[in-house]
Amino acid sequence: MRPSGRELNEMRSVSIETDVTKHAEGSCLIRVGDTHVLCTATIEDRVPPFIKGSGLGWVTAEYGMLPRSTTSRMRREATAGKQGGRTVEIQRLIGRSLRAGVDRVALGERQITVDCDVIQADGGTRCASITGGWVALRLAVKKLMKAGDVTTDPLVSPVAAVSCGMYAGQPILDLDYPEDSEAGVDGNFILRGDGRLIEVQMSAEGATFSRAEMDTLVGLAEKGVGELVALQEQVTA
Amino acid sequence: MRPSGRELNEMRSVSIETDVTKHAEGSCLIRVGDTHVLCTATIEDRVPPFIKGSGLGWVTAEYGMLPRSTTSRMRREATAGKQGGRTVEIQRLIGRSLRAGVDRVALGERQITVDCDVIQADGGTRCASITGGWVALRLAVKKLMKAGDVTTDPLVSPVAAVSCGMYAGQPILDLDYPEDSEAGVDGNFILRGDGRLIEVQMSAEGATFSRAEMDTLVGLAEKGVGELVALQEQVTA
Amino acid sequence: MRPSGRELNEMRSVSIETDVTKHAEGSCLIRVGDTHVLCTATIEDRVPPFIKGSGLGWVTAEYGMLPRSTTSRMRREATAGKQGGRTVEIQRLIGRSLRAGVDRVALGERQITVDCDVIQADGGTRCASITGGWVALRLAVKKLMKAGDVTTDPLVSPVAAVSCGMYAGQPILDLDYPEDSEAGVDGNFILRGDGRLIEVQMSAEGATFSRAEMDTLVGLAEKGVGELVALQEQVTA
Amino acid sequence: MRPSGRELNEMRSVSIETDVTKHAEGSCLIRVGDTHVLCTATIEDRVPPFIKGSGLGWVTAEYGMLPRSTTSRMRREATAGKQGGRTVEIQRLIGRSLRAGVDRVALGERQITVDCDVIQADGGTRCASITGGWVALRLAVKKLMKAGDVTTDPLVSPVAAVSCGMYAGQPILDLDYPEDSEAGVDGNFILRGDGRLIEVQMSAEGATFSRAEMDTLVGLAEKGVGELVALQEQVTA
Amino acid sequence: MRPSGRELNEMRSVSIETDVTKHAEGSCLIRVGDTHVLCTATIEDRVPPFIKGSGLGWVTAEYGMLPRSTTSRMRREATAGKQGGRTVEIQRLIGRSLRAGVDRVALGERQITVDCDVIQADGGTRCASITGGWVALRLAVKKLMKAGDVTTDPLVSPVAAVSCGMYAGQPILDLDYPEDSEAGVDGNFILRGDGRLIEVQMSAEGATFSRAEMDTLVGLAEKGVGELVALQEQVTA
Amino acid sequence: MRPSGRELNEMRSVSIETDVTKHAEGSCLIRVGDTHVLCTATIEDRVPPFIKGSGLGWVTAEYGMLPRSTTSRMRREATAGKQGGRTVEIQRLIGRSLRAGVDRVALGERQITVDCDVIQADGGTRCASITGGWVALRLAVKKLMKAGDVTTDPLVSPVAAVSCGMYAGQPILDLDYPEDSEAGVDGNFILRGDGRLIEVQMSAEGATFSRAEMDTLVGLAEKGVGELVALQEQVTA
Repeated sequence: MRPSGRELNEMRSVSIETDVTKHAEGSCLIRVGDTHVLCTATIEDRVPPFIKGSGLGWVTAEYGMLPRSTTSRMRREATAGKQGGRTVEIQRLIGRSLRAGVDRVALGERQITVDCDVIQADGGTRCASITGGWVALRLAVKKLMKAGDVTTDPLVSPVAAVSCGMYAGQPILDLDYPEDSEAGVDGNFILRGDGRLIEVQMSAEGATFSRAEMDTLVGLAEKGVGELVALQEQVTA
Repeated sequence: MRPSGRELNEMRSVSIETDVTKHAEGSCLIRVGDTHVLCTATIEDRVPPFIKGSGLGWVTAEYGMLPRSTTSRMRREATAGKQGGRTVEIQRLIGRSLRAGVDRVALGERQITVDCDVIQADGGTRCASITGGWVALRLAVKKLMKAGDVTTDPLVSPVAAVSCGMYAGQPILDLDYPEDSEAGVDGNFILRGDGRLIEVQMSAEGATFSRAEMDTLVGLAEKGVGELVALQEQVTA
Repeated sequence: MRPSGRELNEMRSVSIETDVTKHAEGSCLIRVGDTHVLCTATIEDRVPPFIKGSGLGWVTAEYGMLPRSTTSRMRREATAGKQGGRTVEIQRLIGRSLRAGVDRVALGERQITVDCDVIQADGGTRCASITGGWVALRLAVKKLMKAGDVTTDPLVSPVAAVSCGMYAGQPILDLDYPEDSEAGVDGNFILRGDGRLIEVQMSAEGATFSRAEMDTLVGLAEKGVGELVALQEQVTA
Repeated sequence: MRPSGRELNEMRSVSIETDVTKHAEGSCLIRVGDTHVLCTATIEDRVPPFIKGSGLGWVTAEYGMLPRSTTSRMRREATAGKQGGRTVEIQRLIGRSLRAGVDRVALGERQITVDCDVIQADGGTRCASITGGWVALRLAVKKLMKAGDVTTDPLVSPVAAVSCGMYAGQPILDLDYPEDSEAGVDGNFILRGDGRLIEVQMSAEGATFSRAEMDTLVGLAEKGVGELVALQEQVTA
Repeated sequence: MRPSGRELNEMRSVSIETDVTKHAEGSCLIRVGDTHVLCTATIEDRVPPFIKGSGLGWVTAEYGMLPRSTTSRMRREATAGKQGGRTVEIQRLIGRSLRAGVDRVALGERQITVDCDVIQADGGTRCASITGGWVALRLAVKKLMKAGDVTTDPLVSPVAAVSCGMYAGQPILDLDYPEDSEAGVDGNFILRGDGRLIEVQMSAEGATFSRAEMDTLVGLAEKGVGELVALQEQVTA
Repeated sequence: MRPSGRELNEMRSVSIETDVTKHAEGSCLIRVGDTHVLCTATIEDRVPPFIKGSGLGWVTAEYGMLPRSTTSRMRREATAGKQGGRTVEIQRLIGRSLRAGVDRVALGERQITVDCDVIQADGGTRCASITGGWVALRLAVKKLMKAGDVTTDPLVSPVAAVSCGMYAGQPILDLDYPEDSEAGVDGNFILRGDGRLIEVQMSAEGATFSRAEMDTLVGLAEKGVGELVALQEQVTA
């Protein structure tokens, strides 16, 4: 029934290649089907003004799409002179989600910036960014710990994300672009490896959903995130 | 237990004063406790380029806060030279939510812009904007129907919104500012009068939540929206 | 002869409601006919860089119009990405005018920002902003004095403003929008309660005026400001 | 008594050199003492959208200061990314003033843009821009008439401007920079050659003025503008 | 003598992987040592306004660096709100260079946009962008020809680029970042496969060069470009 | 053969008028044929952050064109809200070129900003800006030395610039606008008075050039710069 022939509760094939750039403290290229996102983590000794002197660390994120990561070319945001509303929403979500897995006291007064740049898009770029962003963050923190700059592991529980939605009346896991553009209801679910929920964003454009459908989608998300967390742990072991 | 002395499942007192400005096709001043939002609806005969010639209508929203609607003065966004990320997120949410109650074929090729301007803020401004915005929209559509410009009522089911969250370990309904700034988990629930969900945004800053907590919060939201819809119908009867 | 049936030298009915928002140090809603402006005054302990360390205070103003304060909806300036030329002119005028009634030594090294937001426009918004802005300023200064932060009253003489113009060949006081859009000559007169002039801006778009007409308009303005100052004193007594 | 040794009612020496650039349809370099402004007029066959098809013409103006036209270097507005509030105010004033001398029906559906660029500033740049701008406009219109594109002279009466103010308690004509920075009251007076007033902007920063002082300053302005108009007519004869 | 141990006239190892994204009409990932640039070519049926209706085609380019393509993280240009001066210079150079190899009549009235995004930087990103950009362009044009949309090959002669400079008093070919940051004289040479020069940019920051040195550097460039063109032809054969 | 009747190797008539504004530390008006550029040099005691405390000085440049310096009116960059790509390229080139003639240790920790504003354009504005900019710089440095603020002359060798290109198949010196708009190959050559090259920018839009042609153009540039340097020395003697 799905255009790709997948089962309702089947994710696309996922791979995470680590250490793909030589400059970043942590990096990976995550591929969720045809959605490819390059994630890098940068450690800096400064923190934003609002926590200066607090002893707490900070994790933030930025998100971008290469102009031809999409079917037809998008205008480059640097040329447009600003980040669009969708970009701003997504990068705030990524940062907030990653922070839910971080012990900011243990991190100490430093900032880690996770950049997620979409090389090729086929639906679910924000979820892939969170899942891959966590891997880059994990690798950067490893360096901090190896160097002795951080002694207690500040990463409490892995963070991963997946989308679920109602497609042709059926609940499905991990929407690709053709599914996403048809789905009336679309949700992003960010969870930790310990099963706790971090963020749920269910949204209907020109449609609505029932509580029962909501429950089913949460269940699918728990399955998908479980698989993603297993992969995250394997590649960062 | 709540700073205001309210019950866990008790909303603040809500009032909606209609027809508060002489220029707008529809308008109201909604007061949810000390949160006061002025909502106006403007009808225009043009639609955005992406639906020109489709025969479909469009409903969109913009959101703003007066500089001194808050405890300490905020910088005016017009002076800053752009709308902040939070503003953009909120006005996209308002527009998407209202559209879920609209039959865009019945509306015909015209645009209704709902402006929500916060006069005084005390938590829950986005939810008050949606609830009040629906009233302004309803009043504007009434004018269209009275004038015979629209013959089938394009408003399918009323739309209202309420926030719920975990405060001091308890699930509470309709957070005011002191509660909102302490709550680890905070959700916005947008529903229709017929009980269908339109949007769920649950978010934890520096915290997480369980499925059971999620379920409880949805239940509180259903109660709150029921009360709001009753008031909407009363003031627009 | 006037569309509203007013006498040539008759102002619209004016009311000033004080303490209309709970956060601001001073606030009022001024209604000059159908022109309604919300004015708030914010006290801050910092001053602009150019007077830091001088011991002098500063009073400044910002001005905005809600998008649907006008007959047809205006674009929101925050969306446009900048304040228009008219807005900038008006807010500079408001600030300059209010400062003419202030003893900046007595105020001490602090800043008071007066925000004037037009809720509904029907001509004369800048004059209503000055008159109402003075009331907000007066109320904020009262708090400073009551708290003992300021010992000598820094407000020297009340400041109020009114427009006058040539309409259908006749000099008239306090133009409403229908008059303003027809008047060839239009002036804004800002005076103090002691009768001293602060600012005169007479301007002709597509017309000119004689010295005799100028003199008559100044006379009308003196009458109008007298009435406004009496009301200011009454509501802040 | 004046720093320059001038009489109270004495203007600086004024010269207007015409046809100073080869590209513009009209141009002059006006020198009012040490204030030097290059004015050019550009004729274009298009008009702004709001008068398209009306048969009416338009005259508009832009104003700029070279970065080192002032005692200490100013930031270039193109680098700052926008025109400052002062610049916007001035160029709106120039355009409005020039239009008061133009018969827009006779001009026909075309636009003339007057650019006023300050090469060297020593007070009174906006007045010099108006006076010189009129000369550039006059020369451009002459070309239109010579070419037969316009048959009735659209320039009704010359437009010129001068500043007056209260300096050390005395009313003075044509303030230079040292006077301008000391004057408590400062006015710009734009008049036509036939003695009609176009715009009066009297403003007090940290001071006020009486009606009698106002009257005296208008009288000085009439004298000054008379001299400027004589020079305008001489150089464009 | 070179930090990398290369001969003075030896290029870094170069590879070009083609068809690396599924959406773009042409694409490659070029690696010049540790400098990695993703190049995509997008075909659109519209052309810029200045050639509309001329029958001529257009080739243009945009350039960007991922924030962590560099040793320390750079600010994202979309966040900064504009492209920096260096970016603008580079993308104008890429477009101009590629056009020198294109017969715009044969291309027909369509636009090809070449996006060059630096994934990892180690010196020479603009040269790698031109060399890789040509490959993306070549692949896109192949599709046009295969589809019969273009009948005469519009690509006249391949275009490639290399940098040369004076390092420690010696002329060297293809500077990597450590060499580039030490070199007093630095040149970018863009040539066609037929040996004709397209662009020469020799620049000295805090140094100068003689005519003899200039001649030597041009000779090195001819060698390097010869090798690059051979590789371009091999991967697009 | 040239439109102007000049010999292939003949420059336009050049004049440099010094001390043309009273505020700047150094200034000149350079006229290269009908290209007129006003150059001013401003000395400031602060330096950019990246050299603060280094003891080194800095020379930088800004460039602008008056809106009607060109045949048809250009949009004012301050109105457009940013400097265009061409402007940014040119001002970076001017700054870099001038610095090649400066001993930044001898200059001491201060900044000189050279502003080049084109009053009238007829081709070659960037070269005229460099040649005139050097004169303004020279005059400003003279003041520093006269005042004893600088003891060793920081100006090592004069800097001047000229354009050369291929026009109708012939190599020509100092292109004016009609030649520039026809020339397929166009180069800017910046040299020092001692014959050393600082910058070579040869560029072909829709054309290419051979090494032999390149060599000829360099020879012409050497001749032209020789003449310019002689004039620079004469007017600053």
